[in-house]
Amino acid sequence: MADYSIGVDLGGTNLRAAAMDPSGRILEKISAVTPIEQGRDAVIDEMVSGIVKLRERLGASGLAGVGIGVPGFILLEKGYIVGSHNLPFFNEFPLRDEIGRRLGTPVILENDANAAALGEKWMGAGRDVNDLVLLTLGTGIGGGVISGGRVLHGFVGMAGELGHITVVPNGNPCGCGNHGCLEKHASATAVETMAKLVSLGDNLTSRQVYDLAVAGNQDARRIFESMGWALGVALAGLVNIFNFPLYLLGGGALAAWDFFAPAMFEQVKLRSFTFRNTGTRIDKAILGNEAGLYGAACLPFQQRES
Amino acid sequence: MADYSIGVDLGGTNLRAAAMDPSGRILEKISAVTPIEQGRDAVIDEMVSGIVKLRERLGASGLAGVGIGVPGFILLEKGYIVGSHNLPFFNEFPLRDEIGRRLGTPVILENDANAAALGEKWMGAGRDVNDLVLLTLGTGIGGGVISGGRVLHGFVGMAGELGHITVVPNGNPCGCGNHGCLEKHASATAVETMAKLVSLGDNLTSRQVYDLAVAGNQDARRIFESMGWALGVALAGLVNIFNFPLYLLGGGALAAWDFFAPAMFEQVKLRSFTFRNTGTRIDKAILGNEAGLYGAACLPFQQRES
Repeated sequence: MADYSIGVDLGGTNLRAAAMDPSGRILEKISAVTPIEQGRDAVIDEMVSGIVKLRERLGASGLAGVGIGVPGFILLEKGYIVGSHNLPFFNEFPLRDEIGRRLGTPVILENDANAAALGEKWMGAGRDVNDLVLLTLGTGIGGGVISGGRVLHGFVGMAGELGHITVVPNGNPCGCGNHGCLEKHASATAVETMAKLVSLGDNLTSRQVYDLAVAGNQDARRIFESMGWALGVALAGLVNIFNFPLYLLGGGALAAWDFFAPAMFEQVKLRSFTFRNTGTRIDKAILGNEAGLYGAACLPFQQRES
Repeated sequence: MADYSIGVDLGGTNLRAAAMDPSGRILEKISAVTPIEQGRDAVIDEMVSGIVKLRERLGASGLAGVGIGVPGFILLEKGYIVGSHNLPFFNEFPLRDEIGRRLGTPVILENDANAAALGEKWMGAGRDVNDLVLLTLGTGIGGGVISGGRVLHGFVGMAGELGHITVVPNGNPCGCGNHGCLEKHASATAVETMAKLVSLGDNLTSRQVYDLAVAGNQDARRIFESMGWALGVALAGLVNIFNFPLYLLGGGALAAWDFFAPAMFEQVKLRSFTFRNTGTRIDKAILGNEAGLYGAACLPFQQRES
C-alpha cells in the first residue's frame, strides 16, 4: 500500500498538484493553467481532475489526504476563502467542502503564504527548526508563522498578515486602509513605485530595476536600500516578538538580496538586542515556487499525527 | 493531602509569595520588602525562607512545585537571568538551580511580564481564551504572549519583548540601541517625558499628568492621545501578526485608559483589517499587581500536565 498525500498550489496563474510520500519525496506532479476566465466551476473541475488523476496513478487506498494552498484568508471553521484578489469568485464559497464532496475525501485549505512557510519548515531552509517566520516578497508581501512545527492560525485563521505591519506610520497608503504597510515599502510593487519616484523610468519592472542596480545605477541601489530598511524595521519587531531561531525571505524579489540585505541587517542589528545577543538567523528560503506545494502536501500528514 | 503550588513574584521593591490550589484559590500569602541593598544572598535567603514558611504551613507532600517570576530575560536552558536592571546581582547567576538546591524541590523561573500574561490567562481577563497578548504599561513596557495556553518563549526564552517594537522609526532613543521603541512613546516614563516637552512641569509623575488630564488640561490630554497613538500602532501590528482573540493592557498606566484608549482604538481600526473584520478584543487586564503571582503559581501545574 502506497502512503502519500496530495498537495495543491492554486494560484491566479498556475494550478499545480503533487503527490508526496511522508519523507517529502515527490511521487508524481502535474500542472495546468488556472482557467480563471472560465469561472469558478472550471477552476474547481480542473483542480479535482488533477487530484483524481494523481490518485488513480497511486491508488486511492494509500491517500492520507489532500491539502490545498490558496491566496486569501481562510476562515478555518467554515473552510472558505475571503478577500482573495486573484480568485474573487471563491470569496465566501464553501471551497473545502465542495472539493471534499467531489473527491469523497477530506480536504484541508491553507493560505498560500502559510503553506509556503510550512513547506520550508518541512523540506526547505527550516528543516532543522520547529519555529520560523517566512516573508514572501512578491507583488505584495505574504507571511507565515510556524510555531512548534505547525502553522500559527489565530482564532479565525488570519494570523501571519506580516505584509501589513506598519513600518512608516505616515508612509505610503495601502489598500488595507493603513499607511506605511511593509508591503508598500518592500515588495516588488514598492520597488517599481520607487523607480517612478526617482525618475528611473515609468514602467520598469522590479527585475529591470534590479538589472540597473547590477549595472551600478545609484538610484536603483538606493531603492533596494530603502526596501532593506523597511524589511529590517519589520524583522526587528518580529525578532523581538517571537525570539524564533529563523526568519526566512522568499518570493521573486529575493533575487535582489545582495542589494537589500546589507541595509536590512543594519536595521535589525540596530533595533533588536535579541538579534544582537542570540544566534538568530535571517536567511533565504530555498524552495522557491515549490514551497507552497510542499506545505500543502505536508498538511494531511500533520493532521493524521495530531 | 493538600495539592498546591507556590508562586513567587520577585520585584525590585517587593517580594511576594503565595500558595495556590489548582483552581487558583490563594491558600496562604506572604510579602516582604526585597532586601536589595543587602545584596544577592540576602534576597535569596528572604525568598527561600518565605517559600519554606508556606511549605511548612501547608505540608511538603502536597507541593506541586515552585514558580518564580523575575524581571529580566530568562535563559531557559541555563535557568538564569540576564539584563535585569532591577536586580543586577542576579545577572548570569544560576538562580533556578541555587533556589532549587536550597529547597530540595524543582523551581521554574519565568520573566515577570510572561508570568503576568499567564496569570491573566489562568485567573484573569483571559480565562475564556487560550491565546492572548499582554502589554504591561509601567516604567517600561513589558510583554507576554500566551499561545495555546502557554507562554511563548522563543528559542532562548526572550520572546515577548513587545516594549521594543519600533513604532516611530526615528523616534525617541532607547537604551536598547533602537529609536522609537513602543516603551519610549507609551510607558509611564514616556508620559513624564512628554510632560516636560510640552512644559507642563519638569518633574511631574505620570499620575500627576493624569490628574491634570482629568482636570481638563488640554496638553495633558494630548500626551495621553500620543500614548494611545503609539499603543495603537503596535497593537495593530500584533493583531495582524497573531490574529489572537484578546490583547490585554495592564500596569500602572492602565489608569489613564479613558484618555489613551480612544486614540489607540482609532489607530488599530485604521491599521488592521483583521481587527475591523473579526471579533478581536483589546481590553483591560484585571489582576493588577497580582497577575505575576498567579502566573508564577500556575507554572508548576502546567509543567505537571505536560
